[in-house]
Amino acid sequence: MEQPDAPIAAAEAGAAAEIAGDAYIIRALELADLSKGFCDLLAQLSPSPPLSEEAFRARFAELAALGADHLVLVAEEAATGRLAAAGAVLVERKFIRRCGLVGHLEDVVVDAAARGRGLGERLVRRLVEHARGRGCYKVILNCTTELKGFYAKCGFEEKNVQMGLYF
Amino acid sequence: MEQPDAPIAAAEAGAAAEIAGDAYIIRALELADLSKGFCDLLAQLSPSPPLSEEAFRARFAELAALGADHLVLVAEEAATGRLAAAGAVLVERKFIRRCGLVGHLEDVVVDAAARGRGLGERLVRRLVEHARGRGCYKVILNCTTELKGFYAKCGFEEKNVQMGLYF
Repeated sequence: MEQPDAPIAAAEAGAAAEIAGDAYIIRALELADLSKGFCDLLAQLSPSPPLSEEAFRARFAELAALGADHLVLVAEEAATGRLAAAGAVLVERKFIRRCGLVGHLEDVVVDAAARGRGLGERLVRRLVEHARGRGCYKVILNCTTELKGFYAKCGFEEKNVQMGLYF
Repeated sequence: MEQPDAPIAAAEAGAAAEIAGDAYIIRALELADLSKGFCDLLAQLSPSPPLSEEAFRARFAELAALGADHLVLVAEEAATGRLAAAGAVLVERKFIRRCGLVGHLEDVVVDAAARGRGLGERLVRRLVEHARGRGCYKVILNCTTELKGFYAKCGFEEKNVQMGLYF
């Protein structure tokens, strides 16, 4: 019996196997993630003392109200249920460039124990795809000089200078 | 008759005089600004073809829905009613730094004919004050190397590298 759809079926099976065999599941942030090491992860990025359940839920609700204009993705280690990476993209609505949209990539972090496996790049590419899907004409980010190589691998190129004013 | 409140009254009179004698009025963007040269101004910043009334109103409404988390300020020339400068600040809600807030300064432009009078600095400082008032712990921006001096005058210092990925 001929199977004209065999190549497609094979591709699907391959994709399924890839997901099933993957050590990490990349998905949107959930309320349960507070107890899966979300704050420990963020503390590797910037001073982030543990958040109370109340503070986490309040900020989560504020971001959820922005719909697809603000997405936080996390990578959960399948074996342990702990979070191994996180990152966010915020969509800015402009008037320039025919009311263009810009994605701002923010707070990307990979757990120290999970680095060197391409997880950060996978997460960044997922966030970039989200911005592209929303119709952004570009995605921008700020990083230290040391991280330029990592983001170049993810498809970014150096553009400008970031300046800051701290209160 | 004694006037115990004279110093306050004098201060108020002084403030009023300053506004009345000012060549520019800095205020929030209004719907009527489409016909006051808003798009001509933006075109000096980035490719910005004229917007239709419909497109401008739609984006204006989307930004208004964000409340004080997105502010566009313009400087109107008192004598002509034309816009001479514009700039925006977007407040980003984070989980790091105890659910900290960050102001993103965007799309600051001063009309070529109005430059060199300190108008850009006044506008930037107003946007920064808005972010501070919202509780942001910092304001950040991206600019070309040529503009570093201008933003340093406004209180900013160089921090990182901006990278971009264009679709």
